[in-house]
Amino acid sequence: MSAVKVTIIGAGSVVFSLGLVKDLCLTGDLKGSEVCFMDINEERLDVITRLAQRYAEDLGSDLRFTSTLDRAESLQDADFVINTATITHNEYFMKRRREMAAEHGYFYGHTGMPEYHNLQLMLDVAKDVERICPEAWILQAGNPVFSGTTLMGRETEVKVCGLCHGHYGYHHVAKTIGLDPDKVTWQAPGLNHNIWLTHFFYEGQDAYPVLDRWIEENIQQYWEDHKTSGISAQLSPSAIMQYKLYGLFPIGDTPRSGGWWFHTDLETRARWYGAGGGGDTPEGRDRILKGKEEKYAKMKAAAYDVDVRPVTLFGDQKTREQHIPIIDALVNNNEYRAQVNVMNNGALAGVPDDVAVEVPALVNQVGIQPLRVEPLPNKILLECIYPSWLRMEQTLEALLSGDKSMMLYGVLESHQTRSFDQAMEMLEALVDIEPNEPMAYIEDIHDHYGWPDNWDL
Amino acid sequence: MSAVKVTIIGAGSVVFSLGLVKDLCLTGDLKGSEVCFMDINEERLDVITRLAQRYAEDLGSDLRFTSTLDRAESLQDADFVINTATITHNEYFMKRRREMAAEHGYFYGHTGMPEYHNLQLMLDVAKDVERICPEAWILQAGNPVFSGTTLMGRETEVKVCGLCHGHYGYHHVAKTIGLDPDKVTWQAPGLNHNIWLTHFFYEGQDAYPVLDRWIEENIQQYWEDHKTSGISAQLSPSAIMQYKLYGLFPIGDTPRSGGWWFHTDLETRARWYGAGGGGDTPEGRDRILKGKEEKYAKMKAAAYDVDVRPVTLFGDQKTREQHIPIIDALVNNNEYRAQVNVMNNGALAGVPDDVAVEVPALVNQVGIQPLRVEPLPNKILLECIYPSWLRMEQTLEALLSGDKSMMLYGVLESHQTRSFDQAMEMLEALVDIEPNEPMAYIEDIHDHYGWPDNWDL
Repeated sequence: MSAVKVTIIGAGSVVFSLGLVKDLCLTGDLKGSEVCFMDINEERLDVITRLAQRYAEDLGSDLRFTSTLDRAESLQDADFVINTATITHNEYFMKRRREMAAEHGYFYGHTGMPEYHNLQLMLDVAKDVERICPEAWILQAGNPVFSGTTLMGRETEVKVCGLCHGHYGYHHVAKTIGLDPDKVTWQAPGLNHNIWLTHFFYEGQDAYPVLDRWIEENIQQYWEDHKTSGISAQLSPSAIMQYKLYGLFPIGDTPRSGGWWFHTDLETRARWYGAGGGGDTPEGRDRILKGKEEKYAKMKAAAYDVDVRPVTLFGDQKTREQHIPIIDALVNNNEYRAQVNVMNNGALAGVPDDVAVEVPALVNQVGIQPLRVEPLPNKILLECIYPSWLRMEQTLEALLSGDKSMMLYGVLESHQTRSFDQAMEMLEALVDIEPNEPMAYIEDIHDHYGWPDNWDL
Repeated sequence: MSAVKVTIIGAGSVVFSLGLVKDLCLTGDLKGSEVCFMDINEERLDVITRLAQRYAEDLGSDLRFTSTLDRAESLQDADFVINTATITHNEYFMKRRREMAAEHGYFYGHTGMPEYHNLQLMLDVAKDVERICPEAWILQAGNPVFSGTTLMGRETEVKVCGLCHGHYGYHHVAKTIGLDPDKVTWQAPGLNHNIWLTHFFYEGQDAYPVLDRWIEENIQQYWEDHKTSGISAQLSPSAIMQYKLYGLFPIGDTPRSGGWWFHTDLETRARWYGAGGGGDTPEGRDRILKGKEEKYAKMKAAAYDVDVRPVTLFGDQKTREQHIPIIDALVNNNEYRAQVNVMNNGALAGVPDDVAVEVPALVNQVGIQPLRVEPLPNKILLECIYPSWLRMEQTLEALLSGDKSMMLYGVLESHQTRSFDQAMEMLEALVDIEPNEPMAYIEDIHDHYGWPDNWDL
C-alpha cells in the first residue's frame, strides 16, 4: 500500500470526476493518498472537492482532497495526472458550434475541423508535467485521445497513456446475444474510436458463429423492439454493415463514426442508427446535455445538502473506468488488464512506431505493458486505420506549424463541404467562435495561424 | 551501335505510336533493329505498320517492322516492351462513361473509380514479359503510370520504368515568364501527375524570384490575353493557388488535378482553369477527340496514299518523348537525363521503398539510375503525396483481392458522391459498362469481384 498524489486536471468534468472519486474512495490500497483537483471553473471545482470529501466520509476512506485553480500548483509532486480537461467538448460549446455549422450547411457539426484547442491544451499540460513533475504518468481521459496521445508522446518525454471506455462495447454485444460478458475472452486493437474485434471466445469456443447466428435470426426483431427506446450504435445497422464490409465486428465508438455516408442528415442517420437517428444528432445530444445537467444537480446536492449523503445518491460500487485501477496496479502491483492508448513501438503491425495505438495491456509494477497483437486485415488498415492515421498527421502538422491553410484542408476534406468558398466561410467562423470558458492560450491559438500572402485570387 | 527488338503493345495508339516511329527512325544508333507492333485492332495495326515502313523509307532508316495481333508472339526475343495499351482511356469509351456518370450526378466522370481494367492489362503484359522475355525492360506509357508501375514492380520480377511527358510543364513555365527553357536547371520529384518544382535555376541563379515577380505583375493580364484561346492548366488560377498553398510550383498534370473542389462543375472549372473550364471538360475532351481523329486520318493518308509522304506531313524532328532516347542510352550508352517512374528504394524520402516515385534519372549502359532527390515539404507529403499513395494502395488491394466492396469504397470517397445508394448505383453501372474494344479478360475482371453475402440491410 502506497500513498501517492493524483492530480485531476479539468476536475469539474461531469463525465469523469464523480467516477474517479468513487473509484479512489473504493480502492483501499491507495489510502493516505492526496487527490488534487484542478479546474478553471471555481464553482465546479468546489462542488467536486466537497462531494469527494463527503463521499470519503461516507465510505470511511483515508484520502486527502485539495483543490486549486492554478495548474502549475496542482502538478507539484504529482505522481499521476489524470487529464479530463476539454475546451471544445464542452456540451454548451458543442451545441453553439453545431448550430453555427448548420447555418453553413453542415449537419451535426461534421465540418472536418479537428479539435485544435483541446490538442493545444493537452500539449500545454504535458509540457508543464515535463517541467514540474517529470516522473508522473499522464492518464489522458479527454478527447481526442488518438491524436492527443500521439502528440504528447512525440513532443515531450513524459509517460503518457490515453484511456477510453469504448472497448466495453464487447460487453454489450456479448450480453445482447445471450453470453455472460464475464466469461468472454476478447481482443479489439486499432486506434482509439477505431477498434476491431479480432478475437471473441466464449468458454473456450469461438463466439463469432454465435454472433453470426444471432444477427441472422434476431437482428431485425432487435431493431424493431428497440425502435422507441433507441438502438445503441454498437448493434445498429451501421455496425452490422461495417461488420459485413470488414469481417470483424467494430467495437465501441467505431460504429458511431464509420463512413461519412452514415451521417449526412437526420433521415440517413435514422436508416443506419435507428428511429430518431441515435445519440449523435442534435436531439440526441440535447438529451445527453440534459442528463449531464441532472447529474450535476445531484452532484451539487451531494456536495452541499446536509440531508443528502453521496453514497445514497451514487452507491458504493466501483465504475468500470480504468484510471484508478491502472494507478493501483502501477503503485501497489494489483495486476490489471487494461485497454490502453500508447505509442505503438511494434505492438500493432503496419502502424508506425510513433503513432498511438489502442491495444490490450498488462499493468503491474513493471509498468503499462502493451501486448503485441495480431495484425489487422489489410482492408481495415487501408480503409479505416490509414485514413485516420493520415488525418491525425495532417492535424498535428497544422497545429504545430500554425498553417491556417492546413486547417482549411481539413474542412475541404469534409464530405459535407460542397465548394471552396463554403469551406473558407466555415473555417473563418470556426476560428472566430469563442469557447464558453475563457482560457488565456485560446488567444495564442487564434494568433498562431497565418494565411498565405495573397490568398485571394 | 546495337540492333535490338522493340515491341510496342497497343501500337494503334494515336497519342504515342507516330512519335515512337519518328524517334526510332531518327535514332541512327538503333539501325538494324526490329520494331514489332502489336494491337488487337487490325485496322490500326496495319496503319501504323505501313506508316512506319514508309517513314523509314523517307528517312533512309535501316529498321525492320513487323506486326502481330498476338501478344505472346510479339514478346518473343523482345529487348524492350513499350506498353501504350489502354482499355478505359480510349476516347470513345471515356465519352460514353462520362455521359453515363453525368446521368448519376457526377461531373466529368469524377466517380472515384480507378482504372482497374488498365491495371489488369498492365499486370497481364508484365507477367507475359516475365514468362517470355524476362530480361526485357517494360517502358510503361499508358495510364495510370503511378499505380501501374507500382503494381508491376511488386507482382513481377520484370524491370519496369513508367514514363510520362508531364514534367515538360517546366518548359512552358520558363518560356512564358521569358526564360530560355534550354538554360533552365530544374528538379520536380513526386509521384506521377503529382510532381513539384523543388529546384528552378536560370543561368546559375534561383529563378523562383523571377517567377514570383512575373506572377505578381503579369498573371492577370496573361489570363485576360488567353481568355479565348484557353489557359493551359500549367499557369491556371488552380496552379497559382496550389503554388501559394504549397510553396512549390506544381508541374505538368499536377495542376490539372489538385483538390476535388476545382472540378465540381463547369462554372467552378471556369474559375480555376479559365473561360470554358479548360481541357478537362466534356467540350474540351471533345476537342481532343476531334484532334485525335484528324491525326489518325493524316496517319492513314501517310500510310496508304501514294501521293502523300509521311515526312512531308509529320516532319523530320524528334519528339520530346523519352522512350527511344532511354533505349538508345541503355543500348548504345548515349547518355540521357530522364524523368522516370521507378520503385522508390530510397530516392524520395518519406515514401515507402515499394512505391513508384517520379524522379530524375541518369540513363546509360549502367542502367536507369534514379537520383536521390531532396525531400518534399511535409505539407506536400501530407496533403498531396500520402493521400495519393493511400488511394493507390486501396486500388491495388481492391484489384488483387477481387473485393467489390473495396471498389465501392473508392466511389464513396469521391466528393461528388452524395449518398450510399448513389455510390452503389454508380458502381454497378461502371462495372457493367463494356469497353469499346472486345478483350477476353474483361470478362475475368467482371467475374472476379464478389459482393459480401447479405449486402442489403
